[in-house]
Amino acid sequence: MSASTRARIVRIEASIRTERDDALTLEEPLEIRIQGVPIAVVMRTPGDDEDLVMGFLLTERIVAAPSDVVSIRHCTTVTEPEAEENVVLVVLDPKVDPPLEKLRRNLYASSSCGVCGKQTIEAALAHGGRVDAPLSVSADALTAMPPRLRAAQATFDATGGIHAAGLFDANGELALLREDVGRHNAVDKIVGAAAKAGLSPKEHVLLVSGRVGFEIVQKAAAWGLPVVAGISAPSSLAVRFGQALGVTVIGFLRGESMNVYAGAERIR
Amino acid sequence: MSASTRARIVRIEASIRTERDDALTLEEPLEIRIQGVPIAVVMRTPGDDEDLVMGFLLTERIVAAPSDVVSIRHCTTVTEPEAEENVVLVVLDPKVDPPLEKLRRNLYASSSCGVCGKQTIEAALAHGGRVDAPLSVSADALTAMPPRLRAAQATFDATGGIHAAGLFDANGELALLREDVGRHNAVDKIVGAAAKAGLSPKEHVLLVSGRVGFEIVQKAAAWGLPVVAGISAPSSLAVRFGQALGVTVIGFLRGESMNVYAGAERIR
Repeated sequence: MSASTRARIVRIEASIRTERDDALTLEEPLEIRIQGVPIAVVMRTPGDDEDLVMGFLLTERIVAAPSDVVSIRHCTTVTEPEAEENVVLVVLDPKVDPPLEKLRRNLYASSSCGVCGKQTIEAALAHGGRVDAPLSVSADALTAMPPRLRAAQATFDATGGIHAAGLFDANGELALLREDVGRHNAVDKIVGAAAKAGLSPKEHVLLVSGRVGFEIVQKAAAWGLPVVAGISAPSSLAVRFGQALGVTVIGFLRGESMNVYAGAERIR
Repeated sequence: MSASTRARIVRIEASIRTERDDALTLEEPLEIRIQGVPIAVVMRTPGDDEDLVMGFLLTERIVAAPSDVVSIRHCTTVTEPEAEENVVLVVLDPKVDPPLEKLRRNLYASSSCGVCGKQTIEAALAHGGRVDAPLSVSADALTAMPPRLRAAQATFDATGGIHAAGLFDANGELALLREDVGRHNAVDKIVGAAAKAGLSPKEHVLLVSGRVGFEIVQKAAAWGLPVVAGISAPSSLAVRFGQALGVTVIGFLRGESMNVYAGAERIR
């Protein structure tokens, strides 16, 4: 499915008005149902929905491994034709037995903001264990990543309205690229695709095209990823999460330079 | 309260490593309690919390007018000192009587993503009535807004990690500026401050510093604001909401040019 759509727009330039076609990043709701129970609605760019949902299940710690998931597929029996692409049914191994009503209450929306589904501030900060990977990355490998991410991006140039996330190995080679209108969704798509492909989080670096919010670091840590970098700034909470969870946090990775906010010992 | 904090970072530039202080945008959870019941946790940049909560109550249609709100104040009896700035107690006029348990279920987190708290995709798309304001704005007034927003921004230059929203009159004069790590929060802060100051939404234009997601248009429409503009791209759903709700949607407002995706009849 395409990540963008066409729209008829009015372009105004130095008071001259013209009509033209323009590309728009698609943004559609995706309802995730587990064993038939709706537990979350995610606003996402369609495409790679199975990766997105697998990543969501892993980074929200609903499942521990892809093998806990029996199937992820689009619902084909919705009443509205438009909703057909926008409802995903997840079947888990019966032995997983997630507390669905609690999940529904706590996770409704959490994909979009990482913490919102948590019932209290305290719970939001008490999430997960430390990432213990001894990965070492050179500064040169890191500075090589942003141009490679941009070169690989398919949608950005067309719409200017999408976030990208890339998974790189320690030599700076791009392993996976995913895009989405929501930066957390791009990360979930990466995690889902990588987990299905059997890639180890411990050997990789995550690069996001914009700012590093705390939910990016939280999701990376939940999957066991040791290094998160962004082209733009991290937030204070992203840095606190990085320090608390043992994740290296890099911001302003541009040209030959970067700022390292946590875990600088992983950079050679 | 300051919107940024200082952090000790490692700066790497052409392989030269130096330590320095750097500014970080603050991102902290804010728990909103109505009549004592926690109904949402919002990840926000501290500051203007009362405006944020007032705007949230209005744009999520929990109240119809500021006069429905008796008080908004920080909780002073939390057990953790750190949480003292991060819990807000709302007291509503008893005649409002919101369905708190339903709100709690539906709104938990919705500030962060607009739609996530809604139980179904259908409900997400069936929100609110059309904006009927006959506002007319010149292209010149619109192109004057971005430089004025940037000139007025206090935090951006320091951290590079914050969204800004500005409320402008039809002559392009800046009435209000608010900043936040979440773009929807910057909009809620604007709406709350404007409503308290008695500004009419029908006479104003909202400008956001980045992309225009659907939740921006949804919040603008909920308050009755007729024109939403962004420096960067809108999403497909933002444009659909604009068309459905009668909101003018402008993207790529830069230099002397702009793209108009919906409601071009309001632009002279």
